[in-house]
Amino acid sequence: MTRDTLRIAVTGVTGRMGKNLVLSVREAGYALVGGTSRAESPIADVRIVGDLSELISDVDAVIDFTHVSTVVRHAEIVSEARVAWVLGTTGLSAADQAAVEVASERTAVVQAANFSPGVTLVERLARQMGAALPAETYDVEIVEMHHRQKVDAPSGTALSIGAAVAAGRGFMLDAVREPAREGHCGARSTGGIGFAALRGGQIVGEHTALFTSAREQIGLTHRAFDRRVFSDGAVMAAAWAAKQAAGLYSMEHVLGLI
Amino acid sequence: MTRDTLRIAVTGVTGRMGKNLVLSVREAGYALVGGTSRAESPIADVRIVGDLSELISDVDAVIDFTHVSTVVRHAEIVSEARVAWVLGTTGLSAADQAAVEVASERTAVVQAANFSPGVTLVERLARQMGAALPAETYDVEIVEMHHRQKVDAPSGTALSIGAAVAAGRGFMLDAVREPAREGHCGARSTGGIGFAALRGGQIVGEHTALFTSAREQIGLTHRAFDRRVFSDGAVMAAAWAAKQAAGLYSMEHVLGLI
Amino acid sequence: MTRDTLRIAVTGVTGRMGKNLVLSVREAGYALVGGTSRAESPIADVRIVGDLSELISDVDAVIDFTHVSTVVRHAEIVSEARVAWVLGTTGLSAADQAAVEVASERTAVVQAANFSPGVTLVERLARQMGAALPAETYDVEIVEMHHRQKVDAPSGTALSIGAAVAAGRGFMLDAVREPAREGHCGARSTGGIGFAALRGGQIVGEHTALFTSAREQIGLTHRAFDRRVFSDGAVMAAAWAAKQAAGLYSMEHVLGLI
Amino acid sequence: MTRDTLRIAVTGVTGRMGKNLVLSVREAGYALVGGTSRAESPIADVRIVGDLSELISDVDAVIDFTHVSTVVRHAEIVSEARVAWVLGTTGLSAADQAAVEVASERTAVVQAANFSPGVTLVERLARQMGAALPAETYDVEIVEMHHRQKVDAPSGTALSIGAAVAAGRGFMLDAVREPAREGHCGARSTGGIGFAALRGGQIVGEHTALFTSAREQIGLTHRAFDRRVFSDGAVMAAAWAAKQAAGLYSMEHVLGLI
Repeated sequence: MTRDTLRIAVTGVTGRMGKNLVLSVREAGYALVGGTSRAESPIADVRIVGDLSELISDVDAVIDFTHVSTVVRHAEIVSEARVAWVLGTTGLSAADQAAVEVASERTAVVQAANFSPGVTLVERLARQMGAALPAETYDVEIVEMHHRQKVDAPSGTALSIGAAVAAGRGFMLDAVREPAREGHCGARSTGGIGFAALRGGQIVGEHTALFTSAREQIGLTHRAFDRRVFSDGAVMAAAWAAKQAAGLYSMEHVLGLI
Repeated sequence: MTRDTLRIAVTGVTGRMGKNLVLSVREAGYALVGGTSRAESPIADVRIVGDLSELISDVDAVIDFTHVSTVVRHAEIVSEARVAWVLGTTGLSAADQAAVEVASERTAVVQAANFSPGVTLVERLARQMGAALPAETYDVEIVEMHHRQKVDAPSGTALSIGAAVAAGRGFMLDAVREPAREGHCGARSTGGIGFAALRGGQIVGEHTALFTSAREQIGLTHRAFDRRVFSDGAVMAAAWAAKQAAGLYSMEHVLGLI
Repeated sequence: MTRDTLRIAVTGVTGRMGKNLVLSVREAGYALVGGTSRAESPIADVRIVGDLSELISDVDAVIDFTHVSTVVRHAEIVSEARVAWVLGTTGLSAADQAAVEVASERTAVVQAANFSPGVTLVERLARQMGAALPAETYDVEIVEMHHRQKVDAPSGTALSIGAAVAAGRGFMLDAVREPAREGHCGARSTGGIGFAALRGGQIVGEHTALFTSAREQIGLTHRAFDRRVFSDGAVMAAAWAAKQAAGLYSMEHVLGLI
Repeated sequence: MTRDTLRIAVTGVTGRMGKNLVLSVREAGYALVGGTSRAESPIADVRIVGDLSELISDVDAVIDFTHVSTVVRHAEIVSEARVAWVLGTTGLSAADQAAVEVASERTAVVQAANFSPGVTLVERLARQMGAALPAETYDVEIVEMHHRQKVDAPSGTALSIGAAVAAGRGFMLDAVREPAREGHCGARSTGGIGFAALRGGQIVGEHTALFTSAREQIGLTHRAFDRRVFSDGAVMAAAWAAKQAAGLYSMEHVLGLI
C-alpha cells in the first residue's frame, strides 16, 4: 500500500454489516483506519473507538451503516472535516435528512437504500423498460425468491422494481399493482403489475422483471450470491466519493447512470 | 403412403382440437380416414360422418376428444371393432369410466387428461424428485405462467405437479400446500409446497418445479410452445396403441415410463 | 375505421415478411391501401401494383422490406410525396445509403436492421450495462438459442448485443471476444465477452446477456415467440413516423429511448 | 448427543474437503471422532492421527476423500473392522477397485464420483428423459456455467449428464456429441447432443439439460450454491451406510433411486 491509498473508517464496525465492510475494504486494497463500536467484542487488527471524531482526521471516507440516532452527529463530523460520507442508514426523520443535506454542501455524500450495483442498475433499467414498452402491449410480472425465513412478501426490492416500472409509465405502483393470484381471480388487467414471491433454502435474493407481449418477452434478472455485494458496493461508493466535489449523490451517480 | 400406413379417425373433427388433430395426423404421415362432427362447417379433404360406426371398419385407431355424452357409445363401437382408442375426453362419470374399462378388455385404450409427452414426463419426474429429496432439506416451489386471459390460479397442471411431488413424499397435496404469499405471511413451513402464478401475453403454458436446499437447487421446467403439442401427443399415443394388446393405458405407458 | 385511419402501403407484399406485414397492419386497425409485388400469386383483398408510385398518393406511410435494388427508386418516390418510409431492407451500398439520407431531408424515415421493440431495447440496455458494470469485476457471457436449421453461430443479434456491451465499455467487440470453449481452453480473460449458441426445435430466437461478478449476477433476456414481432414493430414505426418531421430515425427513436 | 449418535472419522481432515466434512458432520449432529492427516496444521477440537487404524474401533463410518495411494490400506482397515466406508477418492486403478470390491463383501461401501444429491438425481432423471423423449423429435443441449478460473470445457458433470441422456437413448456419448458451434457450422444433427460452457465470477456450478421439440421444451437444472453440498452429501451417505448390510452402493442407492 502506498501513501496514496484510500483511507476508510467504518462506523458500527463490529456489527454484521460492519464485519463485511472490513472484508470489502481490505479485499479492495484500501486502508482500514478503524471503526466505531459500542460493543465489547473487538475485531482482529481493527482500531476501535467510541466516536467517529477520534478517527476523522486520518481518513478520506467514512462508511456508515448504523442507526438513525447517529446521523446528525456524523453529519457534523464529516462536513467539518470535509471527508466523504457513504450513508446507508435507513429510517431517517425529516430532521435527519435535513442534516444530511446540510453536510452535502461541504462534502461529498453518497446516500442509498441499497448499495448493490446490480440492484441499482436493475431499478434504473426497469424504469426505462416501463417507459419504452407500452402497458397496452407488455404485461409486467415481478418474481422474487428469498430464503425460507423471510416473513413478508413481496420483498422491498421487488416493490422498488415494480415502482420503477410504474414510474416509467407515469403511474404510482399502488394504482396498478395486481393482487396475488389464487383461485378464481379473473383475467389479468391491462397495465397491471403482478408480483410473485418464492421462498426456499438460503437464497440471498433473486429478482426478475418480465415484460411479456403476444410476440416477445424481455426479462431482467438480478441474483445476489452473497451479502458482501452490499459492502463491496459501499466501498466502491467510498472510492468514488473521495474524488468528488461536495454534493448529495446516489448509487446511480457512482455507477455513472446519471 | 403404403398400404401399411396407420389409418386414423378423429371424433369432433371440426372443433379446435379436432382441427389440430387433422394437422398432427397428416404431419406424422398417417392416413386420416375421416371424422365425426355435428357441425355444418366442413374441413378441406376430410370425410365427415355423423357417427363413428360409419368409419370404424376402415380404421386402426380412433382419437377421441369430444364430450362425455359420447363416451359410452364410442366405447361400444371401438370394443366391438377391436380398434385402438385414444381418449382425451374429461369429466367422465363413474358409469362412463366403467364403460371405458369394459372396452379395454377387448382393445387397447390410452386414456389421459394431458397428452403432452413433456407434461407427462415432468409429472413422473416430479414424483421421483419428491421421493428422493427430503422435505426437511428441500423446499419446493412451483411457478407457472399462462396467457393474460386465464381466470384461475394456479393452473391445473401446476397442481398436478405439486400433487406428484407430495405423493413422492407420501402426502396429499392439500396437507402441505402453502397459501399464496402476500404481506406479513410468516416464514415458510418445512415440507410445504408453494405455488406462484404469472400471467402475460399469449403464453401457452410454462411450469417450473424448484427444489431448493441451503446448498443446491434442482429445477424442472416445461414450456409448451404450441397447442399442437397435445394433438401430436395423441397421435403418438394412437400409433403406439395400434400395436398393443387389449388393456387400459396412460401416456406414461406410451412414453415407456412404466 | 375512420377517415383519419393511417393508410399504409407494403412493398414486396407477397413475400413472407410482406404477408406478416399485412396481418400486422390489419390487426393494428390501420388501412392497408395495397402493396407492390413482382409475384403472380395474389393475396386476398390486397390491391397489388407493379411500382410504388401507383399507390403513393393514397398513403401516409410505406413499409419497405424488399431488396437493395429498389432502395434508390423508393427513396425518390417517398421523398417527392413526403410520405413516411419505414425501411428494413439490409445490405445497402454507400450510394443506397446516401439516397436514404437525401430522402430523410424531405420526409420521416425509420431505418433499422431489427424492428423488434424488445431487441432494440435490449441492445440499448446492454450498452448501459456495459458502461455501468466494470469489466474488471463483471464477466459477460451471451447465450442464444435458435431453431435446429440455423447454420451459423453465434446469431447476428447475439453479436450485436455483444458489440453493444463492448461499446459501453469503450471497446470494439473483436478486441474482447472470447473464442468458443471446448477442451483445455484455459481460464477466462478479464474483460472478455463470451458467446454460446444452442440449437433445437423451432425456437424463433432467444438471447441472454449475463453479467456475473463474485457477488451478483445481472441477466437480460429476450425471447421472440413469433416472427410477427418484426412486422408488428415495423407497423409501430410507421404509425410513429407518420407524425414526425423529416429526419432519419432508428427504432430507438420510435421507442423513445433517444 | 446421545450414546447412539453416529460416530464418524474423516480421512484427510485438514484438506479443503476435509474441513468441509468437519462442518457437515457437526451440523448434522453426528460425532466427529477424529481424522487422519499428514499435515502439520491442526483443526480446532479435532483429534488427528497418522493412520486410520488408530480410530477405527471407535467409529461407525469413515468418510474418505484422499488419494489413490491410501485406497488399498483403507479397504483393509474398514473391512476388518466392518465399519461403513464412504469413498469419494477418484482415479482408482483396477487393483484399487478390486480392493474396494473385496471390502464391500464384509462391510457397506458407498462409492461415487459426485456426492451432491442433486447431481446424482439429475443424472438419473436425464437418463429417463433420454429414454422417454425420442431423438428424432427432441434436440438435447447441455449448458453449464462455472467460475472464471476453470480451464476446461465442458465440465465433467456436463459430460456425465450428456452420457446419461445418450445412454437412455442407447448410444455412447462420443457417437452423438455435437462439436462447439462457431462460424458456419451447419444445421444441427438429429440425435446430436450439444454442449455450451459459460464462465464467470465464482459460480460453483450450474448445469441445465434442455430437450426441445417444435412444440415443447423440458429443462432440468442443477445449481450448486456451496461446495458444502458435496460434504453434506457424503455425510448423508455415511448415515445411510452405517445401517446397511455389506455391499457396494452408489449415491443412487442412498437416495433410494435404485
